[in-house]
Amino acid sequence: MSKRQIYLESLPHDVALERLLTALDQAGWGPQREVVPTDKALGRITAAPVRARISAPHYNASAVDGIAVKASDTFGATETSPLTLTIGEQAHWVDTGDPLPPGCDAVIMVEHVNLLDDGHHSGARCEILAPVAPWQDVRQIGEDVVATEILLPEGHTIRPQDMGALLAAGILEVPVVRKPVVTFIPTGTEIVEPKADPAPGEIIEFNSRVILSMVSEWGGTPVRGPIVRDDYDLIRRTVREAVAGSDIVIVNAGSSAGSEDYTVHVLKELGQVLAHGVAIRPGKPVMLGLIDGKPFVGLPGYPVSTWLTAELFVKPLVYRFLGQQVPRRPTVRASLARRVTSPMGVTEYVRVKLGRVGERLVATPISRGAAVISSLVRADGLLVVPSGLEGIGEGSEVEVELLRPLSEIQETVVAIGSHDTSLDLMGSFLRRKSGFYLSSAHVGSQGGLLALKRGEAHVAGVHLLDEATGDYNTAYVQKYLGRPALLVLLARREQGFIVPRGNPKNITSFRDLARPDVQYVNRQRGAGTRLLLDYHLKQEGISPAEVQGYRWELFTHLNVAAAVKAGDADAGLGIRSAAQAMDLDFVPVAWEEYELCIPAELEEHPGVQAVLTLLRDPEFLGAVESLGGYDCADSGRIRRV
Amino acid sequence: MSKRQIYLESLPHDVALERLLTALDQAGWGPQREVVPTDKALGRITAAPVRARISAPHYNASAVDGIAVKASDTFGATETSPLTLTIGEQAHWVDTGDPLPPGCDAVIMVEHVNLLDDGHHSGARCEILAPVAPWQDVRQIGEDVVATEILLPEGHTIRPQDMGALLAAGILEVPVVRKPVVTFIPTGTEIVEPKADPAPGEIIEFNSRVILSMVSEWGGTPVRGPIVRDDYDLIRRTVREAVAGSDIVIVNAGSSAGSEDYTVHVLKELGQVLAHGVAIRPGKPVMLGLIDGKPFVGLPGYPVSTWLTAELFVKPLVYRFLGQQVPRRPTVRASLARRVTSPMGVTEYVRVKLGRVGERLVATPISRGAAVISSLVRADGLLVVPSGLEGIGEGSEVEVELLRPLSEIQETVVAIGSHDTSLDLMGSFLRRKSGFYLSSAHVGSQGGLLALKRGEAHVAGVHLLDEATGDYNTAYVQKYLGRPALLVLLARREQGFIVPRGNPKNITSFRDLARPDVQYVNRQRGAGTRLLLDYHLKQEGISPAEVQGYRWELFTHLNVAAAVKAGDADAGLGIRSAAQAMDLDFVPVAWEEYELCIPAELEEHPGVQAVLTLLRDPEFLGAVESLGGYDCADSGRIRRV
Repeated sequence: MSKRQIYLESLPHDVALERLLTALDQAGWGPQREVVPTDKALGRITAAPVRARISAPHYNASAVDGIAVKASDTFGATETSPLTLTIGEQAHWVDTGDPLPPGCDAVIMVEHVNLLDDGHHSGARCEILAPVAPWQDVRQIGEDVVATEILLPEGHTIRPQDMGALLAAGILEVPVVRKPVVTFIPTGTEIVEPKADPAPGEIIEFNSRVILSMVSEWGGTPVRGPIVRDDYDLIRRTVREAVAGSDIVIVNAGSSAGSEDYTVHVLKELGQVLAHGVAIRPGKPVMLGLIDGKPFVGLPGYPVSTWLTAELFVKPLVYRFLGQQVPRRPTVRASLARRVTSPMGVTEYVRVKLGRVGERLVATPISRGAAVISSLVRADGLLVVPSGLEGIGEGSEVEVELLRPLSEIQETVVAIGSHDTSLDLMGSFLRRKSGFYLSSAHVGSQGGLLALKRGEAHVAGVHLLDEATGDYNTAYVQKYLGRPALLVLLARREQGFIVPRGNPKNITSFRDLARPDVQYVNRQRGAGTRLLLDYHLKQEGISPAEVQGYRWELFTHLNVAAAVKAGDADAGLGIRSAAQAMDLDFVPVAWEEYELCIPAELEEHPGVQAVLTLLRDPEFLGAVESLGGYDCADSGRIRRV
Repeated sequence: MSKRQIYLESLPHDVALERLLTALDQAGWGPQREVVPTDKALGRITAAPVRARISAPHYNASAVDGIAVKASDTFGATETSPLTLTIGEQAHWVDTGDPLPPGCDAVIMVEHVNLLDDGHHSGARCEILAPVAPWQDVRQIGEDVVATEILLPEGHTIRPQDMGALLAAGILEVPVVRKPVVTFIPTGTEIVEPKADPAPGEIIEFNSRVILSMVSEWGGTPVRGPIVRDDYDLIRRTVREAVAGSDIVIVNAGSSAGSEDYTVHVLKELGQVLAHGVAIRPGKPVMLGLIDGKPFVGLPGYPVSTWLTAELFVKPLVYRFLGQQVPRRPTVRASLARRVTSPMGVTEYVRVKLGRVGERLVATPISRGAAVISSLVRADGLLVVPSGLEGIGEGSEVEVELLRPLSEIQETVVAIGSHDTSLDLMGSFLRRKSGFYLSSAHVGSQGGLLALKRGEAHVAGVHLLDEATGDYNTAYVQKYLGRPALLVLLARREQGFIVPRGNPKNITSFRDLARPDVQYVNRQRGAGTRLLLDYHLKQEGISPAEVQGYRWELFTHLNVAAAVKAGDADAGLGIRSAAQAMDLDFVPVAWEEYELCIPAELEEHPGVQAVLTLLRDPEFLGAVESLGGYDCADSGRIRRV
């Protein structure tokens, strides 16, 4: 633990990259040429202008079915004085694509030929009523491509139609830019190959699969090195071998500072450190260097950092080797749903969800944890906060780089609010039955209503118990949304205590939660389940301070169940389906109404209509009930508030 | 020749497609599921919602390097009364990612720990100045993904980050939609495998490569059948075998009507014809049918027709089998440069070039020949003329489907005008040296000036001899463009007679062109070379009617050279580089000035500036001179007119 990582510097990332690219230029690193069969050239980039070997067509070809003639033989033919031609002498039958017989320079379509004798044999006579011009209905040599002309310029990415033109022009091999071989070396003693049952402390290695898949998409040849434990000599040997066989070498540090430390010392011994630490977040501890004139990139271990630094540093290297500009991601302008902050001097990359609600495209920042790979699965776009800003205010218009096609985002129903297991199911059904996508974020019932109010979402899942009346949702919608809305019943669902198998602590009432031997796990403020707990504690006259774990807040029913499953908590309040999913026991407390709140002005939105249709779909409702603890008898019931 | 193809019908293409899809639905044809290793799942489509097998993290992990503690043991620590903890008893060293030791529920960062003894051994003591809350600096089980939660919905295309999340969640295999196997059977006795030296009458088979490359891009598994000659039994046997092993079968008819005829009869015998002939152009003779409940598509033989009908009929089949919507191509709005016409009742697909000149995006229709594969290489977009219209007028705003990224189109310098071999070279150099693309169309010098006038191009290559003054270009620019412009010398170039090796007809003067034994090949009206001929014929008092072939018009120097090379012409007027490229002889006539005309208002356009820079680049000029017949001594000279 004594060797704490000291970063050499904290360069702006573009300066760091330019330093690497300049060093590579000086080392003569760059595009190389190889020749591949045209058949295998799809997606490859031409390394030189490609010239046609032969013309297409490569002979004068009939463009129709008919008789080939010499045009001058037909001059003078008219309707009143037709001209007779003899097959095999002045006229020759040809099909489309046939070469013109010697001496012929035009074709008369069969529709314009009167047969005077039976059949097409040599000697048969036919009659024409009009002359033809030279080269009429003939595809002349080179009509499509002329031999020696440049068919594809240098630096052109070969598409399906290009392959056709190349083969038509007799080109069986093409000079293309060699794909860079990119080797990825995962390091870290705690790192293991993907498995379904890792032991505590084992970290599944998946960064290599993510980054090398990206390398494939960019046009490189991915190579995965073996996992190397934190052993200086072993890392050095592996890097040296990788450099010999690759054009770009990536070392992915384990997540602990120690393994990163090995990497930078290996780089110092084998080559030259050009940058260590860049002013970005996430991804600061990136390392750039040169070994034997080839780029070496040390990527940090947390998956979002790995992904971002690969985007910022590996992608430009792959494109540089291919002689191409890095393609810009499409961008959109959107309104920022919540303020984001960022330290001065650091360029911050914020993952956002995008949703079109009404006329506005809204960008909602999502979890910033660099360790959370699922945040990249859920992200629709990337917002860059420049290093000169300390943040961007709520409601600002921002430019967002798209990580998902805008067309999909436009067809997405945005659900923000309380978590319910059936929402995930709804996503799949909605996609299959209506083509719409569902994006759902779990911020609790109250958070959902506030998101509706701000125009960030189409629907919000809510289950808020009104202590005064025992009624669900109505009063809260009036209070937090304050506009006409629909409340549509998704399902009645059963709340209760999620407890380990066999309920070892014998928890049967809210009173039990206050026992000193009971560790409780709670939901966050604003969650309907939290309100339910508070309501019952108040009823029973229990102070929150008496409940051990009252302040331990998790964001979903499943997270609560997972904490119970792990033995970290003895009980948590949640829905039966979460207990059932985790194979835990469940002590019922109450049935409640889980409704979707939809602002009235969004009722006619086609995606909202698709949701309403789904809430009356027996197949969907059957699937919900099979999750356990759901009653769908009245699903789809609409109340207007 | 007796069996002329009679089309059964001429259905609107959407009606024909819907007929096929309905029949396939009834036959139960559609998505099937298979399970693949997650490692191989990139780009595949989930066939069911994918649930996490394990949580990520799957244990409570330290988020920092430090000491793991039980939070309640730290309560009461302050700066004034620090708390001492003993390693191995109340405190345990952990690295980032390590599991919390039993009994611990929080981590204190190493930066906040004062070491009281030397070293990290068990029994060493350390001091803390503040308490920690439970779960502080701990990545709790399920922070990223909770076991059993839906990670990816059904119908989701797996991206690199999704692979990471799947592996993190212990998912080693994924249920995905099976890719449809698409077999392509080329037919036609005249069809041969790609070769560099086909004999006259041999047609190189490349449609299979184009269409199957597209099938790959759409997500299908391409299978290429052997080329089948026009033999009914052989075609029937091949189709029957293909149907047994495929999900979609394509038969590509030879270009003659006969082979198409075989195909429809085979389809009638083995299955059911659903449509034969659709109201589109090109591509009318498409065939749709069903054999053993699987789709059969007969694609016409001309490459542009093949491509278009594959887009319209095969693409929707592949996506239907994958359970996906056909992605819409991005579109742009552009101003139509020239009127296009189309018969009523037929949907016409017009390939267009796009160029941004000034503020306007202009769409210029290109050659409609269905046999011209290079037109698909050159096309930037597709304009659809609906069946209810007879055409679309010049200057109309139209919607164009993009075949090339808009960003590339925006970075394209559009050159329309006289053909010169060095322009092709310029395209490659421009791309490499400045990143700009060059799009060049050959319509002759006068046509180029008119294109500039209409705002369709940035530059026009011109070499127009003023008979009165012997000066080049100036008077014409004033007459046809009528606005201030720059004339920039690309090169002086040598014009002369392109003749076969050894000049067998001994052509040495314009007078020789009028000899009865000489077949001439001309350039089109408006071409500078045509004007040069007319000037000299007039000087010599020769009437055009005396020149055999005066009305035979080709569009480029290379096409003229190709006609001479083929023996179809004895001479043509053209530039030395064309003769040299085709290994022909050349009889010099004159040096002329080939200039680029650039409207003055476009001078500051960055792409135009890149062209001007290139015209003073020794490497480029050297490459031009090596083409033969160019003098670049004054290249880059600018005249303002």
